Amino acid sequence: MLLHLSTWQEVETYLQTSQGIIFPIGSTEQHGPTGLIGTDAICAEVISRGVGEATQAMVAPTINVGMALHHTAFPGTISLRPSTLIQVVRDYVTCLAKVGFTKFYFINGHGGNIATLKAAFSETYTHLEDLQIPNSQKVQCQVANWFMCSSVYQLAKELYGDEEGSHATPSEVAVTQYVYPEAIKQAPLSPEVPRGHKIYGAADFRHRYPDGRMGSNPALATPEHGKRFYDLAVEELSKGYLDFVKPE
Amino acid sequence: MLLHLSTWQEVETYLQTSQGIIFPIGSTEQHGPTGLIGTDAICAEVISRGVGEATQAMVAPTINVGMALHHTAFPGTISLRPSTLIQVVRDYVTCLAKVGFTKFYFINGHGGNIATLKAAFSETYTHLEDLQIPNSQKVQCQVANWFMCSSVYQLAKELYGDEEGSHATPSEVAVTQYVYPEAIKQAPLSPEVPRGHKIYGAADFRHRYPDGRMGSNPALATPEHGKRFYDLAVEELSKGYLDFVKPE
Amino acid sequence: MLLHLSTWQEVETYLQTSQGIIFPIGSTEQHGPTGLIGTDAICAEVISRGVGEATQAMVAPTINVGMALHHTAFPGTISLRPSTLIQVVRDYVTCLAKVGFTKFYFINGHGGNIATLKAAFSETYTHLEDLQIPNSQKVQCQVANWFMCSSVYQLAKELYGDEEGSHATPSEVAVTQYVYPEAIKQAPLSPEVPRGHKIYGAADFRHRYPDGRMGSNPALATPEHGKRFYDLAVEELSKGYLDFVKPE
Amino acid sequence: MLLHLSTWQEVETYLQTSQGIIFPIGSTEQHGPTGLIGTDAICAEVISRGVGEATQAMVAPTINVGMALHHTAFPGTISLRPSTLIQVVRDYVTCLAKVGFTKFYFINGHGGNIATLKAAFSETYTHLEDLQIPNSQKVQCQVANWFMCSSVYQLAKELYGDEEGSHATPSEVAVTQYVYPEAIKQAPLSPEVPRGHKIYGAADFRHRYPDGRMGSNPALATPEHGKRFYDLAVEELSKGYLDFVKPE
Amino acid sequence: MLLHLSTWQEVETYLQTSQGIIFPIGSTEQHGPTGLIGTDAICAEVISRGVGEATQAMVAPTINVGMALHHTAFPGTISLRPSTLIQVVRDYVTCLAKVGFTKFYFINGHGGNIATLKAAFSETYTHLEDLQIPNSQKVQCQVANWFMCSSVYQLAKELYGDEEGSHATPSEVAVTQYVYPEAIKQAPLSPEVPRGHKIYGAADFRHRYPDGRMGSNPALATPEHGKRFYDLAVEELSKGYLDFVKPE
Amino acid sequence: MLLHLSTWQEVETYLQTSQGIIFPIGSTEQHGPTGLIGTDAICAEVISRGVGEATQAMVAPTINVGMALHHTAFPGTISLRPSTLIQVVRDYVTCLAKVGFTKFYFINGHGGNIATLKAAFSETYTHLEDLQIPNSQKVQCQVANWFMCSSVYQLAKELYGDEEGSHATPSEVAVTQYVYPEAIKQAPLSPEVPRGHKIYGAADFRHRYPDGRMGSNPALATPEHGKRFYDLAVEELSKGYLDFVKPE
Repeated sequence: MLLHLSTWQEVETYLQTSQGIIFPIGSTEQHGPTGLIGTDAICAEVISRGVGEATQAMVAPTINVGMALHHTAFPGTISLRPSTLIQVVRDYVTCLAKVGFTKFYFINGHGGNIATLKAAFSETYTHLEDLQIPNSQKVQCQVANWFMCSSVYQLAKELYGDEEGSHATPSEVAVTQYVYPEAIKQAPLSPEVPRGHKIYGAADFRHRYPDGRMGSNPALATPEHGKRFYDLAVEELSKGYLDFVKPE
Repeated sequence: MLLHLSTWQEVETYLQTSQGIIFPIGSTEQHGPTGLIGTDAICAEVISRGVGEATQAMVAPTINVGMALHHTAFPGTISLRPSTLIQVVRDYVTCLAKVGFTKFYFINGHGGNIATLKAAFSETYTHLEDLQIPNSQKVQCQVANWFMCSSVYQLAKELYGDEEGSHATPSEVAVTQYVYPEAIKQAPLSPEVPRGHKIYGAADFRHRYPDGRMGSNPALATPEHGKRFYDLAVEELSKGYLDFVKPE
Repeated sequence: MLLHLSTWQEVETYLQTSQGIIFPIGSTEQHGPTGLIGTDAICAEVISRGVGEATQAMVAPTINVGMALHHTAFPGTISLRPSTLIQVVRDYVTCLAKVGFTKFYFINGHGGNIATLKAAFSETYTHLEDLQIPNSQKVQCQVANWFMCSSVYQLAKELYGDEEGSHATPSEVAVTQYVYPEAIKQAPLSPEVPRGHKIYGAADFRHRYPDGRMGSNPALATPEHGKRFYDLAVEELSKGYLDFVKPE
Repeated sequence: MLLHLSTWQEVETYLQTSQGIIFPIGSTEQHGPTGLIGTDAICAEVISRGVGEATQAMVAPTINVGMALHHTAFPGTISLRPSTLIQVVRDYVTCLAKVGFTKFYFINGHGGNIATLKAAFSETYTHLEDLQIPNSQKVQCQVANWFMCSSVYQLAKELYGDEEGSHATPSEVAVTQYVYPEAIKQAPLSPEVPRGHKIYGAADFRHRYPDGRMGSNPALATPEHGKRFYDLAVEELSKGYLDFVKPE
Repeated sequence: MLLHLSTWQEVETYLQTSQGIIFPIGSTEQHGPTGLIGTDAICAEVISRGVGEATQAMVAPTINVGMALHHTAFPGTISLRPSTLIQVVRDYVTCLAKVGFTKFYFINGHGGNIATLKAAFSETYTHLEDLQIPNSQKVQCQVANWFMCSSVYQLAKELYGDEEGSHATPSEVAVTQYVYPEAIKQAPLSPEVPRGHKIYGAADFRHRYPDGRMGSNPALATPEHGKRFYDLAVEELSKGYLDFVKPE
Repeated sequence: MLLHLSTWQEVETYLQTSQGIIFPIGSTEQHGPTGLIGTDAICAEVISRGVGEATQAMVAPTINVGMALHHTAFPGTISLRPSTLIQVVRDYVTCLAKVGFTKFYFINGHGGNIATLKAAFSETYTHLEDLQIPNSQKVQCQVANWFMCSSVYQLAKELYGDEEGSHATPSEVAVTQYVYPEAIKQAPLSPEVPRGHKIYGAADFRHRYPDGRMGSNPALATPEHGKRFYDLAVEELSKGYLDFVKPE
């Protein structure tokens, strides 16, 4: 059930049987010479919708810009500062908690969002307790990273070994190819690709990772792989969601 | 050209000939018993993409949550506070201005966003001047409300007269029907619908407009109307965009 | 009744019969070679006091610095950032709402304030609901721009036609001449004055409007005109205020 | 020279010979049963203008709402939070420092402003250094409290002894009587007036000081006293200002 | 009783008989060629612990970084901006007020903290009232500057006369020598040391006070002096604390 | 080399050979019936000093209050909100980066700090790039959690197996016993201790973990164990620090 395709009365009805909602959160950032700038948002969104279908969960509109400051030296990247993203998450959750939602499941497509999301959850819990809204004690947020699903991780290892890398990976590129076969890109990829450098500021990042990839070979991706990753992620995260919302 | 379906190298190439970008901005808010919660984002997005195609402009991912605090007493509405939205816009524009974009065209689907967007633009110009980034003086932001296009306004008047109303209008509902015919909703609509009350806080709004509509009769909407509104908005805003980005 | 010339016990008494208050809000910004930097605050203040006398309303001290970032390349302009002005309005309204005021009527002298004021009102309603103060649901804020009164607009058109322009206008200069005849300024005014450019950042504004005027010929202003504008604005806004505060 | 009665070109001329400006800062807060809510702003403004005349200094519009949170349990008080006032001061000083002002002299009418003003100055210096504007190193802010002038203090002691108290004092009331003889108030004043309690929150303050006075007997004030205080303050602060702006 | 060496159950027990807590607050800033960068924190901490022992009061961990922006041109200085420190104090006090503490006694070692602390107290009282936590009306914060104790001041005058100065003073250096005799420093000290300049920005400060001292001769300090200052401060502030927490 | 026991001139000298600095960061939070509230700060501080000695690194004063909102339902816990801690870290790093430090090594004693620290690092890098300070590109921050050192982890497993738990663990308690043998606490510990619940808000946390422990048996801790943990952590983190600061 997609929030943006529902009416408020349908939401009211939904709340009578479930207080859970899924937030796809991605990023708008460079993904190497062949990866789409929207990769993380695309993956988070499609998988969230799959989970929503499998579990009858409400799926909110995608947060398609996240915390990607370290990618901002590449044109096309858009990032919130962490302090902004914290306020965004606080505002989202507060609006919905006031009307009765209590379980917020963030299906995340970008490693760089995790820290800020966790910080935002803490900030939000205290804010809600301070507002003294009913049920504030029941509000729970969770981040579920599709790319860290054990089944996904295993398949990536199997298919790509070390060439999976850690940014602009063939696995995430494959998912976008599955979703947007018409947007499969070709570009020369140097076989030598840096890996293992820690992430600091944006200029430093571009200096260390000149074409944007971190140890990955996205040329290995295929739409068929993408379908397999998608299926695994939806299955694993559907379990995760149901486990999250089931009454204690 | 859709930013999320592009690579950073394609953006780099694009910047050599254009420094303009379109931001669809909508809202996630109640739209009466039959209007979709995502109405404003859906309309902004589809029209932006139409404009992007017509003008070869880059289209950024949709800002699908805006300033809708007055709708938050209805379940399903999500809103940023104005102070948060200002930071969001500042962050978006700053990232892209640093890499060379200078013309930011916000195609907007929600009247409630206008004031905060304008405030955000002022905040952002000063921020960019303070950062002393090259070309900060050239940065320009503009908000273009598709529902205020004169051709759109005229057609709405022609088709619906007074029953257009000012929220959950048949014209915007029609556009969503055109985009998502599978999500056309049916629900009883009382013939008496309040109109003319000013907008204050969320509880007050729900008290005055109990089913969420403001003077509108969305039952008049059809997908065919939606197509006509879409075509008119794309045509008028494409001219608006080209006028905005043309060298002085 | 002027708040700053009242005692707190007089305010307490006032609150027994009215919960309305008028906030004059202006700006401290360049107004061309002959316009006073305080023009917007002067006009808002004098008209507010006129309305206060006509309606027995309480008039708060003038907010004499507003949102004028685009004028800051001219010496003497002082501006708040929109995010600051939002906090200011929030603080003002919160203090007074806590003690029982519910109707806040902002008589505004500067177009650049409108967007931020509206954003501030939204921010404030939600803040007050979150504080759960009694009557938070009844709190209403309204911005009334004296220069957009239909009677004022008509007179300006009649007296000045196109030479009214949109900044440093003869109508606002006339009001300041009426209030401060001793501060009528003389300076050479080029007959060619730019008009019609959109407003972006401060440097850009000064570049487009080198002497600060936007299409106006303030040399047409006279103190007698000022008196007429004053009378019209007071009359029209007094009706507006009474309409705003009357019980529903 | 009053900023609000000047044109931007006059400011430009002024800057060629002086970079100093005076900011009157007061408060809008209860001043006991007979003191005006605007007392602190009225005093700061009139004395600032006197100093401006005596020294040819530019005088900015009065900051008439300051930090008076502890008075907010009395109706009519308006206060900024300290964090808001810091941003306000930062914005004011930044605008003027960018165009060449370097010496900011805050003539203050309210003890409760002092701490926040000093905090704001520190915040502002660092902000200006971070902006790297020319002359940021030369920017200096100073707060000068008219009621702490030694000549004023001495006269108050002479005229009122212990009955001067520390809030709603006869000395400040006298200055307002001198400025606004038409607004001299009469109200019963209990001879017993609490004194010596420290200041904490608003509810606590009202509990300890039920009629708002802190150890003062404002019934002793006369307009003639007010004139004497005014003269002394103007004289002493004019010296202070000249000393502040004189080249080192 | 040291908070950091207590268990939460011991705190719970403590709260049954006392709601007071001592916060040592210092600074991490240059103290001239021979003064320790931690001087202010060291003094505040050791004296707080002495007061804690003498009065059975709970002593919280030391706030060892304060408001020292004007010292930041000297390497090793760390400062919060005032707006940050206000939030820090607000967070500290809010956490403890929620569980029952009501009397917050800040033993301060740095003059530069005073203004921001006072601003923070005001901000915090209003925040707590807004949260409507029980006993918010009873919350009281006080700043007690050990170096302004009359007994301390007198001894410093006696021992050092004018050479006490106002920063990197022999009295504070002496206390650090008493606490850390192993960290007594030797460095050439020019006999000429500037004094009397007001404090503005960081670059200006370093320009006026090139070696960091303000009119002081820290070479006069001895550990024995330090012991005497310590004893006096503990005695005087212990009385201050007991007076602060005693029931009215 | 301890920053607080150094002079600014010693720091200046230090900077000629190293631009690295260690920040101990802990927390002030409940640690079960027998764990000290300062546990995390104590461990971070002592280990940081050990690393400082082993590597000749500068060690800054301990950040003894971190992000512990989820523990605030237990008396004695003090926490910053994440948004506050981000500003604190930004301020600390900015001050030191301006004078030449580039490598910031945060030795952390509290899992709850990690997310906010990482968010703060991102916020800070962008801030420094925006300030355009020299070497901003070289600034690097790293968080090193002593309790996640592999040698520490292994020893904890060996000594305590499952009874290590995840909060108020015997390993961290052991380190505090080694440092403060005089503050070893005794209290009854129920053998049943909950484990495995996710962390949400403060009230929820206390509900799930009534005595504050998360699956741990701190009764197993001994000062001797503490010494072993200390030695291992110092050794491993010293390598980590040297690796971090070594020129590339």
